[in-house]
Amino acid sequence: MRKVILDCDPGHDDAFAIMLAAQHLDLLGITTIGGNGILENVTTNALKVLEVIGRPEIPVYKGHAGPLLKPLVTAPEFHGESGMDGPVLPEPKIKARAQHAVDFIIEAVMAEEDVTLIATGPLTNIAAALHRNPAIAKRVREIVIMGGSVTFGNWTPAAEFNIYVDPEAAAKVFNSGAWVKMTGVNLTRQCLITAKEMNEFRKLGTRAGQFAADLVAYFIEACEKTAQLPGANLHDACAVAWVIDPGLITAAPTHIDVELTGELTRGMTVCDYRHLRGADPKTDLYRTPTMPFRGKAPNAEAALELDFPGFMDLLYRTLRAYR
Amino acid sequence: MRKVILDCDPGHDDAFAIMLAAQHLDLLGITTIGGNGILENVTTNALKVLEVIGRPEIPVYKGHAGPLLKPLVTAPEFHGESGMDGPVLPEPKIKARAQHAVDFIIEAVMAEEDVTLIATGPLTNIAAALHRNPAIAKRVREIVIMGGSVTFGNWTPAAEFNIYVDPEAAAKVFNSGAWVKMTGVNLTRQCLITAKEMNEFRKLGTRAGQFAADLVAYFIEACEKTAQLPGANLHDACAVAWVIDPGLITAAPTHIDVELTGELTRGMTVCDYRHLRGADPKTDLYRTPTMPFRGKAPNAEAALELDFPGFMDLLYRTLRAYR
Amino acid sequence: MRKVILDCDPGHDDAFAIMLAAQHLDLLGITTIGGNGILENVTTNALKVLEVIGRPEIPVYKGHAGPLLKPLVTAPEFHGESGMDGPVLPEPKIKARAQHAVDFIIEAVMAEEDVTLIATGPLTNIAAALHRNPAIAKRVREIVIMGGSVTFGNWTPAAEFNIYVDPEAAAKVFNSGAWVKMTGVNLTRQCLITAKEMNEFRKLGTRAGQFAADLVAYFIEACEKTAQLPGANLHDACAVAWVIDPGLITAAPTHIDVELTGELTRGMTVCDYRHLRGADPKTDLYRTPTMPFRGKAPNAEAALELDFPGFMDLLYRTLRAYR
Amino acid sequence: MRKVILDCDPGHDDAFAIMLAAQHLDLLGITTIGGNGILENVTTNALKVLEVIGRPEIPVYKGHAGPLLKPLVTAPEFHGESGMDGPVLPEPKIKARAQHAVDFIIEAVMAEEDVTLIATGPLTNIAAALHRNPAIAKRVREIVIMGGSVTFGNWTPAAEFNIYVDPEAAAKVFNSGAWVKMTGVNLTRQCLITAKEMNEFRKLGTRAGQFAADLVAYFIEACEKTAQLPGANLHDACAVAWVIDPGLITAAPTHIDVELTGELTRGMTVCDYRHLRGADPKTDLYRTPTMPFRGKAPNAEAALELDFPGFMDLLYRTLRAYR
Ligand SMILES: [Ca+2]
Ligand SMILES: [Ca+2]
Ligand SMILES: [Ca+2]
Ligand SMILES: [Ca+2]
Repeated sequence: MRKVILDCDPGHDDAFAIMLAAQHLDLLGITTIGGNGILENVTTNALKVLEVIGRPEIPVYKGHAGPLLKPLVTAPEFHGESGMDGPVLPEPKIKARAQHAVDFIIEAVMAEEDVTLIATGPLTNIAAALHRNPAIAKRVREIVIMGGSVTFGNWTPAAEFNIYVDPEAAAKVFNSGAWVKMTGVNLTRQCLITAKEMNEFRKLGTRAGQFAADLVAYFIEACEKTAQLPGANLHDACAVAWVIDPGLITAAPTHIDVELTGELTRGMTVCDYRHLRGADPKTDLYRTPTMPFRGKAPNAEAALELDFPGFMDLLYRTLRAYR
Repeated sequence: MRKVILDCDPGHDDAFAIMLAAQHLDLLGITTIGGNGILENVTTNALKVLEVIGRPEIPVYKGHAGPLLKPLVTAPEFHGESGMDGPVLPEPKIKARAQHAVDFIIEAVMAEEDVTLIATGPLTNIAAALHRNPAIAKRVREIVIMGGSVTFGNWTPAAEFNIYVDPEAAAKVFNSGAWVKMTGVNLTRQCLITAKEMNEFRKLGTRAGQFAADLVAYFIEACEKTAQLPGANLHDACAVAWVIDPGLITAAPTHIDVELTGELTRGMTVCDYRHLRGADPKTDLYRTPTMPFRGKAPNAEAALELDFPGFMDLLYRTLRAYR
Repeated sequence: MRKVILDCDPGHDDAFAIMLAAQHLDLLGITTIGGNGILENVTTNALKVLEVIGRPEIPVYKGHAGPLLKPLVTAPEFHGESGMDGPVLPEPKIKARAQHAVDFIIEAVMAEEDVTLIATGPLTNIAAALHRNPAIAKRVREIVIMGGSVTFGNWTPAAEFNIYVDPEAAAKVFNSGAWVKMTGVNLTRQCLITAKEMNEFRKLGTRAGQFAADLVAYFIEACEKTAQLPGANLHDACAVAWVIDPGLITAAPTHIDVELTGELTRGMTVCDYRHLRGADPKTDLYRTPTMPFRGKAPNAEAALELDFPGFMDLLYRTLRAYR
Repeated sequence: MRKVILDCDPGHDDAFAIMLAAQHLDLLGITTIGGNGILENVTTNALKVLEVIGRPEIPVYKGHAGPLLKPLVTAPEFHGESGMDGPVLPEPKIKARAQHAVDFIIEAVMAEEDVTLIATGPLTNIAAALHRNPAIAKRVREIVIMGGSVTFGNWTPAAEFNIYVDPEAAAKVFNSGAWVKMTGVNLTRQCLITAKEMNEFRKLGTRAGQFAADLVAYFIEACEKTAQLPGANLHDACAVAWVIDPGLITAAPTHIDVELTGELTRGMTVCDYRHLRGADPKTDLYRTPTMPFRGKAPNAEAALELDFPGFMDLLYRTLRAYR
């Protein structure tokens, strides 16, 4: 079982990320970061999810409340005021640990071999850990993030939310020397949950299935109302699924950096995908390189295509297995 | 016949643009701009093309030697030192007119109804004309440009050459109030000429066909050598073909602006194509809107798909018709 | 008599600049630029000033209405809606010439030896002329501007109004190769007009004196009300006075460039005055170099100290001499 | 005695800062930061200084090796490869503590009332502490920094070294809500040490005096050679002296922020000192406000004038008192 730390800001889709990781990976700990909601809320939400799935022993560590430089931007229009509106859950009995998330990350990575960091919120904690102890860049197996995009953004035409919230942190991660695997919105929008899947969740008859259905019931409606989306994307779950089963995602090596100063593009993950132009000239973004790299050497792997049926199969199995 | 002015920097692909425009459009004049080569050279090249096709009466006007702000960047690795290496042609007997390109553009647009500006080089002249007489923004029918991209760039990961050379000019054009039709590299790379088409050119038996074959012989080799491209893209010819036969290109309205300050993205045409995500989530860039616009109202039409056989048919007919 | 062209945006202080230039210099023409007020208004104001001083033969040429890139910013809080509120003057009988200001500048500079350009508004016209014909950079004797600052700004903490309005144009001028003499606000605030000088103007008994008094009556009040200034600075008059009598201003060579992308400093004239630190360490800005240059070679001369009594003497003589 | 933490990167002038702080303030600890030299070296240098002055009990904590975003820039041309070349000292017997500097800062500030942070290197540690626990911004009495400038820079025309090395950290500090007192190079250049003072140090007959003389012997030569300076500025000592005796420095409240994106001005402390223009218009930078503020409310106090004799008196007394 792969050792992972999940840094997240639950967040409806983060909740699915937790449920996948807790069952299929050696989840050393969950660290929280202000993002979809404020830090207190997303930490509470993480604890709630662990109680729902009966895994209260997994430690949770609170991280940074927001980015170094700019005020935190949250996303109540998608996730509600609590950051995870919808499911009605009691206040969690378990508590977050006293250790700071950044210290836990550093300690765990230095103590264990081959830890994978999965980050499904703004990259503030991961960047702070890399800053405080640059050695972890070479110690980690890889950093798998949900964030950014190869093509269009969501928060702005060019930027995705997680990166937009803390571009400096994202730049730190991509330039750290660690190998980054990016599931951007170009990928995660292929993970589109509609009423059909919601009903399947409910039919599973498990508490986790019920919880999943309640999550997406709210999330689908918010996505529709706020952005006229035809369903809800389980963005964060894709990053975890990729670690669980690499075969679920087709990706290609590419160089990725983050724009910090652009008036229109601040927070954009600038991917050099010129080598990924399709052999068929109508295909802008092919799944495998068709040409040699033209720019800087790849520092990352960009997720391009999701095996959605395979992903759903994993998810159904997971939700069914929680009692 | 539609009245047009062609602002260009020949340039192998500009030469095709001229040949198409001179035969199928009411070409009021050709204006030149430093770009693929220095102003003197591209002006000479424009004159040479007119002599080759027997249209010496079309007036040519010299414009700006380079951008307002930054030194001119040229592209000798693709177009040779002359800007149009390959075909061996005598020095042209005809000369450029005395009037400045910018003044000609303003005068013609103010004098004639419904002029279309086609620009296939850096947008320096067009921007200067819009600056000097903002009224032309509303007088022109539209401004059709080759430049920019909806997706990846060519000169940098994010920027295409024509826009990269003079981003401030491009920003002026997109924000002028004129309707802009953009054939970016995402489109023009669908116009891929290989040895097959070159041989067809040569078989046409006309001087223009011979000239076309000589142009692409050089251009294919340079593109292969410099950028490992599998052929040569007739970028500029696409913009003119679109004006001649709108059915050759499928496009969609979008908001486009130009990044001026980005460290990684300066010169990028930032297209808001979030409404163009495919109904099939695997399609990042669909041909028609699938969702309402989320950002600013469209100021432009982005070319997305080329009818390449139709384009080639137009081109073969054109080259055959020149004697 | 030195041949000059005065590019201005009257503007109360521009009016003084015109009065000085028309009497003491060979004023080949006045060109106008949108700045303190919109182009139509500042052009009318220039014509009015020429009528007041009885010099209707001096040609006036209209230039650009605003910057290339950004919308025009005007300064009605200092200059009123007309750009020159206060004096009550009839509509001018003389008219601006048909030729564009930029063309006049180029033509005059190319036709005459040793022309000095004096610019007391945003540098849009001068930049456009340098762009259209880069040869004038070497033909002009020098470009003397009112704008920018060695130390603090006025429109923002770092930027002065004329440069702030069109930083790209200013960057073009400073990087053109022409020698620039800059009278920034660090200098022009030494030219402080109060009720005392206003009364002297009125006592001169000439129409020009009366006009001057009416101008500063309004201007002093506006400066007091808008910016709590203890009087009105005749910014633009300093630039002209410098050309008339170089002894009135102490200056030092320095390298000056213009910040275009700074979030806090856009439009700042970045002067490298590290060599001007005083021998007395308490003096931040000494009048003559005390150390070798540390950065780029000087491209400009920064005005540092005004002989205010000498300036006033010139101004009183000038106003008295107009009938 | 005021409780202080000194965050520094010794550094010749940092050594003087330590000697002043250790004798006159309740120095809770010294924290180190990569800056003048790499972290290992500046930490060793701090330990060496404590041994020289016989204060091995003062705890030293290692902080960040460099900025979050950009590679560390050091200043070997001024401080030598060790960061404190010149004096020949044995390897220190004392060691830095295990706790991270950032954690020590947070812990001490939360445990003690009214701690003053003094920072004489890049602000990386202070920013990280403010990020990790924003509450310290309101707990500290004030943050006194050596860095930035009201007027000209030293590392670039606009930027001073400490801020230039980590502008993001500096922006964090100035925008934290803590009251910042800035001794910029505009002030510290008034603290000019020459052979005269060096000889006085040597004559003191103490080990500290000898050490001080050895420090400035090297530093004066390096400053002369590298930047043609007429002596060495004890930049960092000014910040500490200000805390010891507020009467040594005349300062004025001002709003200060840090430019992050400027092409020419990145790392500049943008001070709004428009209210500090002298009553005498020839004085650009007066010691007390002459006008109301025009921009944002002051968040800082800018040091403007040093009582150099008073400073030297303090320094001589201090060096004499160390046995
Ligand atoms: Ca998330
Ligand atoms: Ca072209
Ligand atoms: Ca003016
Ligand atoms: Ca220091």
